[in-house]
Amino acid sequence: MHEETPHTISIDDLWEIWPTLDDEERVEWFNQLEHEDAEDFFSSIPCEDQAEMFIAMPDRDRKHWMRELAPDDAADVLQLIDDEDLRDKLKSTLQPSVRKEVDALMAYKEDEAGGLMSPRFARCRPEMTADEAILYVRRQMREELETIYYIYVLDSQQHLLGVVSFEDLLKSGDSKKISDIMETDLTTVDEDMDQESVALLFAREDFFALPVVDSDNVMKGIITIDDIVDVVQEEATEDIQKMGGMAALDNDYLQSTFRELYSKRVVWLIVLFCCTIITTKVMDFYSSAMESAIILGVFVPLIMASGGNTGSQAATLVTRAMALDEIKLRDVLRVFKRELIVGSGLGATLAILGFIVATAAYFLGMVPSDSSYASFAGTISISVGVLVLYGSIVGSMLPFLLKFFHVDPASASAPFVTTILDASGIIIYFTIAKLIFL
Amino acid sequence: MHEETPHTISIDDLWEIWPTLDDEERVEWFNQLEHEDAEDFFSSIPCEDQAEMFIAMPDRDRKHWMRELAPDDAADVLQLIDDEDLRDKLKSTLQPSVRKEVDALMAYKEDEAGGLMSPRFARCRPEMTADEAILYVRRQMREELETIYYIYVLDSQQHLLGVVSFEDLLKSGDSKKISDIMETDLTTVDEDMDQESVALLFAREDFFALPVVDSDNVMKGIITIDDIVDVVQEEATEDIQKMGGMAALDNDYLQSTFRELYSKRVVWLIVLFCCTIITTKVMDFYSSAMESAIILGVFVPLIMASGGNTGSQAATLVTRAMALDEIKLRDVLRVFKRELIVGSGLGATLAILGFIVATAAYFLGMVPSDSSYASFAGTISISVGVLVLYGSIVGSMLPFLLKFFHVDPASASAPFVTTILDASGIIIYFTIAKLIFL
Repeated sequence: MHEETPHTISIDDLWEIWPTLDDEERVEWFNQLEHEDAEDFFSSIPCEDQAEMFIAMPDRDRKHWMRELAPDDAADVLQLIDDEDLRDKLKSTLQPSVRKEVDALMAYKEDEAGGLMSPRFARCRPEMTADEAILYVRRQMREELETIYYIYVLDSQQHLLGVVSFEDLLKSGDSKKISDIMETDLTTVDEDMDQESVALLFAREDFFALPVVDSDNVMKGIITIDDIVDVVQEEATEDIQKMGGMAALDNDYLQSTFRELYSKRVVWLIVLFCCTIITTKVMDFYSSAMESAIILGVFVPLIMASGGNTGSQAATLVTRAMALDEIKLRDVLRVFKRELIVGSGLGATLAILGFIVATAAYFLGMVPSDSSYASFAGTISISVGVLVLYGSIVGSMLPFLLKFFHVDPASASAPFVTTILDASGIIIYFTIAKLIFL
Repeated sequence: MHEETPHTISIDDLWEIWPTLDDEERVEWFNQLEHEDAEDFFSSIPCEDQAEMFIAMPDRDRKHWMRELAPDDAADVLQLIDDEDLRDKLKSTLQPSVRKEVDALMAYKEDEAGGLMSPRFARCRPEMTADEAILYVRRQMREELETIYYIYVLDSQQHLLGVVSFEDLLKSGDSKKISDIMETDLTTVDEDMDQESVALLFAREDFFALPVVDSDNVMKGIITIDDIVDVVQEEATEDIQKMGGMAALDNDYLQSTFRELYSKRVVWLIVLFCCTIITTKVMDFYSSAMESAIILGVFVPLIMASGGNTGSQAATLVTRAMALDEIKLRDVLRVFKRELIVGSGLGATLAILGFIVATAAYFLGMVPSDSSYASFAGTISISVGVLVLYGSIVGSMLPFLLKFFHVDPASASAPFVTTILDASGIIIYFTIAKLIFL
């Protein structure tokens, strides 16, 4: 695709063409960047891309770029490299002290607090004065700290006692004791908290960083908010993809292989297809009813769509609210009540529309002349109204059911809800038709 | 609901029951908090809630709580209050200097960079030494700064020249000039940039804060990343709700009134319902074909679902990738090619399933005995395959079409895509059936 030999390139241009390049081309173009640009660029690409760069780059460059990475980033990259030999080789390029930090971080899963944290935080002792603490932090700055914004107050066993901000240090009198100025009412993160909960904590409280502690309140590291922005985007993307009726992709859409796009989509398509076979069976059960009045069959898509659309609205609302922790399992009755009321309103509105459409169909001669206008319009109108209400209830309750059985509520995708509603919707429709129309 | 007189309450307990309370109850319970807790709590609730609290609280408390707000938060709250008298009254409680800042901020829309920024940033002059700059920043800290993490270097006309971090100041020799240590290769935000783009900028680069400048490069304020986490959550929620086939809610699901839930949902339901009337018309067009072989009608839901499900997958993938700026308008051909290939693979797989189901239906005696097995199974199998491919293409192209016409691509919701595919899907299905089966 890009066959000319690379000369020089700006960081913005490379960012533009980056997704279109394969791994070898990436390394080639990357090497054309000015040294400082290269460092900026390397630190801004996602760790998946960094890992692939390490695989593709020549051995002589690896040490330099490994040492550019902060320990938490190095751990992320190494966890993405499957080839054990290469992983060990890369790890061996690190300084021994960093290697120790990286090993500790690699023990955590990528999507839990421990996997997000950096062990390089600023610390001080409670018995220091503000002045001493500033000097002490300045000394710690020789090894790159993640941030000096917060300074964590630890005892000799590394238990977290409190926190002071650098601003607090500067503001307070120089000889004030840390133990007198530190904030002790702390929000902490457990090392095995999942990243979604960590993100919600950051969204709720306005901190730049939160301390990560183990079960004995020993401080392990800090999570800074810049990593959380990525987590929030990532989690939302995963949810959206699941809600679109597929498994979440590991990469950007354009970066995904055809194989990945296929396999992440085909599974749900097959599941949904098999569910729809039930709908076909139900339709077949009512085929004699359809034979006696083909107009009933003609209205099947309209009736089914009414239920499906309301259902997917309700499921989407509840699923998202659950992801944001606004709705918990115990809210099931409150949600049921809301959907009962709102669904009734929506059902009444759509029933009126259904009545109008049925009237038009009747007077356009689409309906067999031996049937009564009132019973036909009644069938369509009532079916639409009932299915809209029914869709609201089923769509809103399905995420609760999934959550109760510890399945991700985001699996209550629009296609899934629609499919579930289809078969039962047809039964409701033909039952009403049999009662009124046939 | 909570009829007992409030005594005292912890901040966590209040947070729990908060969504269930009406405005008067909120003020009542809020007043039971310890003073320090009350300040923490007040600063952590969303500005919509703060605005409602101001409306509901007695006059004597208003001044105190207005003065608790940072100028950017005060501007947000004031913009949410419709009653002009109350707005002026609240504004008059602020100190004159703050009032000026708030007025300047209120000129910006809430969802653009200017509306997100705080005017309280740390600044220094290029000709200062590191030592002087630290002293200067310490003096600025008397009025609460948003952050001292970055110190912006401005000339006498407030043009932004560069930035130094507080760490840089501490690390460099005390007598080093700011102009020699400052970073001049800056990422800045235009004051009218929309908040979604600002969020993408923060996600791409790992900054805690970015400077906001006007078209003359005059520094107006800073946006800190803690506000961005909220923006990212909010924008994702809006997109998800639109993709679920409705207008985005202004509030949390449980906080929304029935009226809002109804009106945000009913519009799209009516639009979709009207679109589905076309499907009904198309079905009617083929009613004689159905009459001659009712089994074709029985398979309509299965065929339509196949197209709709793939379409909603493809639309979801492309819409989300557009929101994250991974896919731009000019990528339309690349996406088309990808969906052509992946859609063909998915279509082939589902066609095989369709063949199996049709075979089962035939041998279960669901198909009229005078029709040929091969032509029936062929019709179903080919229709499913073609519709899956067709769904991938239409679903992936629809967001491009919307974006091209400056409509939010998130409007390409699963229900909308399904509805669009239904009518054309039926045409494709019956055309194939007429060619092979009838």
